[in-house]
Amino acid sequence: MGKKLGFIGLGIMGTAMAENLLKKGYPLIAFNRSAHKTAALSKLGAEVAPSAAECAASCDVLLINLPDGPSIQELLFGPSATAQSLRSGSTVVIFSTIAPREAVQIARALGEKGINCLDAPVSGGDIGAKNASLSIMVGGERQIFDQQLDVFEALGKKISFMGKSGCGQMMKAVNQIAVALSVAAMTESLVLAKNAGLDQQAALEILQSGAAGSWSMSNYAPRILSGDLKPGFFAKHMLKDLQIVLEESRALGLSLPGANLMKELYQSLCEGPGAELGNHALIELYTRHC
Amino acid sequence: MGKKLGFIGLGIMGTAMAENLLKKGYPLIAFNRSAHKTAALSKLGAEVAPSAAECAASCDVLLINLPDGPSIQELLFGPSATAQSLRSGSTVVIFSTIAPREAVQIARALGEKGINCLDAPVSGGDIGAKNASLSIMVGGERQIFDQQLDVFEALGKKISFMGKSGCGQMMKAVNQIAVALSVAAMTESLVLAKNAGLDQQAALEILQSGAAGSWSMSNYAPRILSGDLKPGFFAKHMLKDLQIVLEESRALGLSLPGANLMKELYQSLCEGPGAELGNHALIELYTRHC
Repeated sequence: MGKKLGFIGLGIMGTAMAENLLKKGYPLIAFNRSAHKTAALSKLGAEVAPSAAECAASCDVLLINLPDGPSIQELLFGPSATAQSLRSGSTVVIFSTIAPREAVQIARALGEKGINCLDAPVSGGDIGAKNASLSIMVGGERQIFDQQLDVFEALGKKISFMGKSGCGQMMKAVNQIAVALSVAAMTESLVLAKNAGLDQQAALEILQSGAAGSWSMSNYAPRILSGDLKPGFFAKHMLKDLQIVLEESRALGLSLPGANLMKELYQSLCEGPGAELGNHALIELYTRHC
Repeated sequence: MGKKLGFIGLGIMGTAMAENLLKKGYPLIAFNRSAHKTAALSKLGAEVAPSAAECAASCDVLLINLPDGPSIQELLFGPSATAQSLRSGSTVVIFSTIAPREAVQIARALGEKGINCLDAPVSGGDIGAKNASLSIMVGGERQIFDQQLDVFEALGKKISFMGKSGCGQMMKAVNQIAVALSVAAMTESLVLAKNAGLDQQAALEILQSGAAGSWSMSNYAPRILSGDLKPGFFAKHMLKDLQIVLEESRALGLSLPGANLMKELYQSLCEGPGAELGNHALIELYTRHC
């Protein structure tokens, strides 16, 4: 404690995470381009910075939760040159899911200015962010990780140090392969059950109880049967994550046909209004049959 | 009770199931083409029939666990004409996984002779068969199902009546889609983790704990990390089941790209020695990278 946190990127996830840090007593200064998003945090005791640069200049640890890699690059090294305002010896923590190689590039560029960087993508969605029960997968220097462990523990339950810069992001990519294919497993089994005229509820009970069981089957399938395709996790974000998976696997010379198929399917889904639905809305691609 | 059971098809599963029925006190007569497979059952009190026809002639309920549809067709309607030996009013229960439409055909042909038929494929593998903890998915007439419920309860824990003839098999097809794609989810995430140089054990802990979690992840991934690709469930049987899935989904006018990919992958695996490994040996297809 004692250290002062900056927070940039106050979407649904970022706001919930910043709130948890304030509740745990951390001094926190927040900046968001849409100023109204800092109002709720201000009531909880956050300072509001008038610019990203002033946010960066007055904190020891800058927490970033912007939507993607390019927006983080622009924040740090673009016209606002926020990285220039960071103090030498301060630490940047990137909670966003970005490409592992981009995390490495950012960490290297910050390192040249004497600034530490951890990549720390999360899983657990908006509920995990609210309940401080996120899984956080961290890459960077072990010593820097140890220094910020208290911050991670204020936000999540399962905190895993995965190795050097980029390894947190790589673990997230690994995780998203399994999530996407689990959604497909759940989806295609429900589609066949419905079209074959089986009782879907009876089918779901069997699917949950044996070797077909999964988090997806237990959590998403009931939502689908009740007609609820609203996001927990956005389909468009799954597409972004799968694009990262394929770039990284190709760079390693790997062929992952399952992940590749899932990228194509989410691409089709996201060409329409499905982009703004939950990732379990994959079943919309099959609904001309349902 | 009181009814006499016949049992034909004493592989690993069939033998374990017959043993459970004997232990529960059912009179049981067994037949197997390889006679040595009836020896252990004989010690537990089973009669041994000298032919399939004599087995059929002396039982009230004939339980069949042969490997596939054609072998069941041949048993019942081929040269040995076992169906001719069945008494009118007796019941055939098919535990094998066969095509739903083949189950319908067999039930219709038996029905013309006044013989009842239930399709009752199981899941839970050799361990479920031994522990009498199988899931059993049953199709046929409800009244006939009710009459044989005691037999099913002697063999399994989750007994589900799914509807008319073929619906048990259709439920099994639905289940196998989810199993196969869950195996792919587990496999491709482990392959990327390994090739990216992540600690696989640490990665597995994260994969099990969130939205990537599945029965496959918790049960197969640890076996893979310890180098154990031995079958619980054979890869060649997964291929057979996926072929059934695709025939049925095509007949319904459905396109299931995930199931289709899995069929192709298991076909590649089964062209080599992978056929005799467990279905989690799918990772062998990726090992030139591992």
